[in-house]
Amino acid sequence: MERILTNKLENKMNEDVLIKGWIHRIKVMKNISFLILRDREGLVQCVVDKDVEWIKHVRLESIVSVMGVVKEGKNKYKNLEVEVKEIELVNEAVEELPIEINKDKLDISLDTMLNNRMLSLRHESKKEIIRIGNLILKSFRDFLIEQGFTEIITPKIVCEGAEGGTEVFKVDYFGKKAYLAQSPQFYKQMMVISGFERVFEIGTFFRAEEHDTKRHLNQFVSLDLEMAFIEDENDLMNLEEKMLNYIFDVLGKEAVKGFEALGLETPKIETRFPRLDMEEVKDILKRKYNKELLEKDLDTEAEKLLGRYIKEKYKSDFVFVTNYGKKKRPMYTMPKGESGTHSFDLIYKGTEITSGAQRIHDYNMLLQSFKEKNLDASSFESYINSFKYGVPPHGGLAIGFERLVAQILDLDNVREVTLFTRDKNRMIP
Amino acid sequence: MERILTNKLENKMNEDVLIKGWIHRIKVMKNISFLILRDREGLVQCVVDKDVEWIKHVRLESIVSVMGVVKEGKNKYKNLEVEVKEIELVNEAVEELPIEINKDKLDISLDTMLNNRMLSLRHESKKEIIRIGNLILKSFRDFLIEQGFTEIITPKIVCEGAEGGTEVFKVDYFGKKAYLAQSPQFYKQMMVISGFERVFEIGTFFRAEEHDTKRHLNQFVSLDLEMAFIEDENDLMNLEEKMLNYIFDVLGKEAVKGFEALGLETPKIETRFPRLDMEEVKDILKRKYNKELLEKDLDTEAEKLLGRYIKEKYKSDFVFVTNYGKKKRPMYTMPKGESGTHSFDLIYKGTEITSGAQRIHDYNMLLQSFKEKNLDASSFESYINSFKYGVPPHGGLAIGFERLVAQILDLDNVREVTLFTRDKNRMIP
Repeated sequence: MERILTNKLENKMNEDVLIKGWIHRIKVMKNISFLILRDREGLVQCVVDKDVEWIKHVRLESIVSVMGVVKEGKNKYKNLEVEVKEIELVNEAVEELPIEINKDKLDISLDTMLNNRMLSLRHESKKEIIRIGNLILKSFRDFLIEQGFTEIITPKIVCEGAEGGTEVFKVDYFGKKAYLAQSPQFYKQMMVISGFERVFEIGTFFRAEEHDTKRHLNQFVSLDLEMAFIEDENDLMNLEEKMLNYIFDVLGKEAVKGFEALGLETPKIETRFPRLDMEEVKDILKRKYNKELLEKDLDTEAEKLLGRYIKEKYKSDFVFVTNYGKKKRPMYTMPKGESGTHSFDLIYKGTEITSGAQRIHDYNMLLQSFKEKNLDASSFESYINSFKYGVPPHGGLAIGFERLVAQILDLDNVREVTLFTRDKNRMIP
Repeated sequence: MERILTNKLENKMNEDVLIKGWIHRIKVMKNISFLILRDREGLVQCVVDKDVEWIKHVRLESIVSVMGVVKEGKNKYKNLEVEVKEIELVNEAVEELPIEINKDKLDISLDTMLNNRMLSLRHESKKEIIRIGNLILKSFRDFLIEQGFTEIITPKIVCEGAEGGTEVFKVDYFGKKAYLAQSPQFYKQMMVISGFERVFEIGTFFRAEEHDTKRHLNQFVSLDLEMAFIEDENDLMNLEEKMLNYIFDVLGKEAVKGFEALGLETPKIETRFPRLDMEEVKDILKRKYNKELLEKDLDTEAEKLLGRYIKEKYKSDFVFVTNYGKKKRPMYTMPKGESGTHSFDLIYKGTEITSGAQRIHDYNMLLQSFKEKNLDASSFESYINSFKYGVPPHGGLAIGFERLVAQILDLDNVREVTLFTRDKNRMIP
């Protein structure tokens, strides 16, 4: 007999079925035992005859295979139960569980959760974070492919072009100096230039930042895109707006159960996000919160205050801030006026989740920009050379995946979104 | 006016259109000039008035924006041409091309091709390799999601569990010793154990192998999957067979143009691949080719000979070889009899493209296996600990992505499949 998943049992009323999974709970009664079996799709109550002795002392989370008949029966899990005809203990757990994962609420610290990742993910509330994250990745990809984008996989070991020298992880590459890539920035631009025009990458990148906050990871997933033949940064904001609307639409349709498991409603769609120039933002922060910005840039507090203002004024969770200062943006950013840039950040619920900009596409302007930033162009040779042979106007953006998911799900810490966290203090598991 | 791509022009007969792209070729005649414009979808002939002076000396591959009307006209590229009304030189190339990319055939060495990656990819024959590779990734993903698999992203910086100590790249992780992951092996098993049951990853991994062959890369893409509740390795071979059939089916439907550009036909579907036990393979190689295998393992020559034999005997490009020697397989492989394992490789056109196996799921058997291989279990602590709390029978496989694509497209070197190659001698671009 072929195994069937627990979410398909309702189609098998009064039929024999084979189910397999983990022992989620056991309740031994006088004449019968209730065994709650869990597979990847959920839970089901199995009624076991009292003659099955081992069930009275078997460890939770052991693996069982159950053959039985599906019967009506109202219980906490489903409107059916499985009357067991045969049950086999496939692989017994060898130790008692270090954390209680079979309660409705998983009440453990973040550290315990991450230390016991294979167990904490067995709890629905943790598993659904990963599943919703997955659905977001899938919608990001589907949307962009539909828009004519090509998925790319760029090098993670690089030797040129670390943007900030100190925050890279060093790799010994056959005795030569190399680094782990901080972003696919140069490579995605080079792939636009190579004629793909529109490219995206969902990739793992690395930053050796010393600080250890709730919204930083040393290994993170970046959702990157880059596109040619744009007019300016507004084309990029239009695309991101449309994309996030698409993603939220998919979540609203396909992730209702997951959001419920997290005690949340699916996020509302907002067709247009307000767009504010940095100068306006400066004014608002000064006027409303007496917060003075010395540079054309937002710190964490400024983002939070602006998020609050936007929510009150526009009823929006999102706001694009444009025209960041030239000093505050990388050397490949298209300048605007004397001190500004054709750049933007997207602030979502008071936290930056995207940085984007139009890039410089003129070879000589690029050289000039490297010079102004006191960067040695020879360390970026292959990147700069690719601007010699026909480069369309282009731009792009990067979304921090873990941060996006954490903001959508109101999670306190981006670590909850990772399967296995890498930060300054955590390399295991 | 909104830009339109060159493959959509046929729907715009006698209408005004705006097209943008690279100058692929120019032919200056007495009264007119022909400009061949290339965008990401192809080529189109534009007819330019003789008054446009700059076109007579503009560099190839410069970026132009063309407004004109679509007219019938038979030429090498399409059954239409664009009569130019306005043409703008958007961004001129600043140097002559170092390689001739505008010929029908790109006749350059592999090194030149990789050195000039942004240019060589502009040639259709090179771009289509990437596009077909992309379609293979997409079909791999689509197939597995349909089969209930969850996509995972595992750590690339690890400190436990390097399978072979010498072939890893070392990373300085905040002063602690760490490595770049060689595979997601332990993590994908842990995610099966965490209750996802079926997981896959399309990830970049790293091997510090010194040898420099046509089928090895130091940074490569691995297509990994792992699934729970299997009977034995046959379930995995069944799945892979079905998956490759699906992928070939998609290629046959969606990649005809790409294969044509490479002078190839789309690959034929083979419903069932022959499966041979290592003992049978030994006999065949001895009997047919006088090739003696001393171990239960195949070397490169043995794979080639077997591929030839299978093609003759079964008219098949594929063959599964099962039951590799216990000594030749990693410590997590499920043993079979005294010296064998529940393992398999898939040989495709005489080259191994997949390794797979059922894994050990019993905690004590796993400890024993580490002991037999003289491995220090304490270096694999978090992996081994995850076998204490309920582990289903499971197994998985890994396909070398670049190698799979190279074999499908009869490419001589896996480097042609990468956007940017990383090998012992190549870190740039």
